[in-house]
Amino acid sequence: MTESVTERRIAVVLLSGGLDSATVLAEAKAAGFEPYALTVLYGQRHAVEREAAGRVARAFGVARHLEQEIDLRPFGGSALTDAALEVPKDRPDDAIADGIPITYVAARNTILLSLALAWAEALGAYDIFTGANCVDYSGYPDCRPEYFQAFEALANLATRAGVEGSGRFRVHAPLLRFSKEQIIRRGLELGVNYGLTHTCYDPAPDGRSCGRCDACRVRLAAFESLGIPDPVPYASTG
Amino acid sequence: MTESVTERRIAVVLLSGGLDSATVLAEAKAAGFEPYALTVLYGQRHAVEREAAGRVARAFGVARHLEQEIDLRPFGGSALTDAALEVPKDRPDDAIADGIPITYVAARNTILLSLALAWAEALGAYDIFTGANCVDYSGYPDCRPEYFQAFEALANLATRAGVEGSGRFRVHAPLLRFSKEQIIRRGLELGVNYGLTHTCYDPAPDGRSCGRCDACRVRLAAFESLGIPDPVPYASTG
Repeated sequence: MTESVTERRIAVVLLSGGLDSATVLAEAKAAGFEPYALTVLYGQRHAVEREAAGRVARAFGVARHLEQEIDLRPFGGSALTDAALEVPKDRPDDAIADGIPITYVAARNTILLSLALAWAEALGAYDIFTGANCVDYSGYPDCRPEYFQAFEALANLATRAGVEGSGRFRVHAPLLRFSKEQIIRRGLELGVNYGLTHTCYDPAPDGRSCGRCDACRVRLAAFESLGIPDPVPYASTG
Repeated sequence: MTESVTERRIAVVLLSGGLDSATVLAEAKAAGFEPYALTVLYGQRHAVEREAAGRVARAFGVARHLEQEIDLRPFGGSALTDAALEVPKDRPDDAIADGIPITYVAARNTILLSLALAWAEALGAYDIFTGANCVDYSGYPDCRPEYFQAFEALANLATRAGVEGSGRFRVHAPLLRFSKEQIIRRGLELGVNYGLTHTCYDPAPDGRSCGRCDACRVRLAAFESLGIPDPVPYASTG
């Protein structure tokens, strides 16, 4: 048993329904927290992500699963939220690792963490979990360890806690330095069913993953190197 | 002319339609920025705020006025977003100045600034203006000067600019240490029509301000001490 029975605190867990956030939800439970799952619908292209988040939340029996809608599409500039921009396909590994990808959504983690902070403060909670990691997508500026430290500092100035000294907010990003293989291995230890998750940036109309975008390629490579079949269905694994 | 004609940069201005944000929009223009106004509708009680923001944006001829909806009501805990909580009325001045008010919305400024940051980054802008001030409502933790400094530090880690070194984000809060009288005096110099703004936390169904909530009382006292009539209509100035 890794779960503490002596202390059961609330944590807000950012849950996209992807592989990383499902794993971090399992981590929050394993660390003895009562998870409140927050899914932010920010104008991603596909309903399939929302459905995956719901499946994962139900599978873990979270105390509450709250969906927040904020349409980031009017801001423009990302292939994840702008249908006019093409999601890159079949890129070689060095291109995936290089630079800030077109799928970067401006200030996304800051928006997600702000909302998690608002809910945490209203709940009287001080712990926020994010599945962010900086290994496979080093190009995202808001996935760097120093970024999360800065957000934690901000959180402790932004809130009642910062004035009243009633507690200290912590942003937990336990997967930050994990490779995708390490994340999957850890999640399987914690009982995560990766068949419930969704990763693809550009799924087929029937919900199957494309197998060719950067996100699919990193996920597939990780399962392959672990010698485990990926339980989600793919339209192509070209 | 305080407006610079040699350099015309874009700034994102958070515009609630209140007295402070109307003044800061005028400040941004006076400082030579081309203002892009962002109004965040977060489940406040009344449509009258939205209308005021639209009137102010039109009056200043902003380059673009974008409304973003994010419903903070499900988080709970604030009289500004929760109809079950009563907005305090007729409080003495020392009660207004004391502690964190029930109208505090958890992490509100962090959410507003995150959204402004996202739009600024997508626009290629580095300047964000907020009408926050820490004099009349010292109880809001996210109106303290050190809070805005921390957000600025975060913004420069959170974004492309932080990775690529292409610019530095600045959060401008020029009214931070101004009293309400100083804000109004400055706004009148800059040509703000305060008849277009809306301040009341609890307006009558016909849109008239209550004259009795903390926000109305601070506003009315400021106009009175300046010897200028407040141009907005009140249901009561008890």
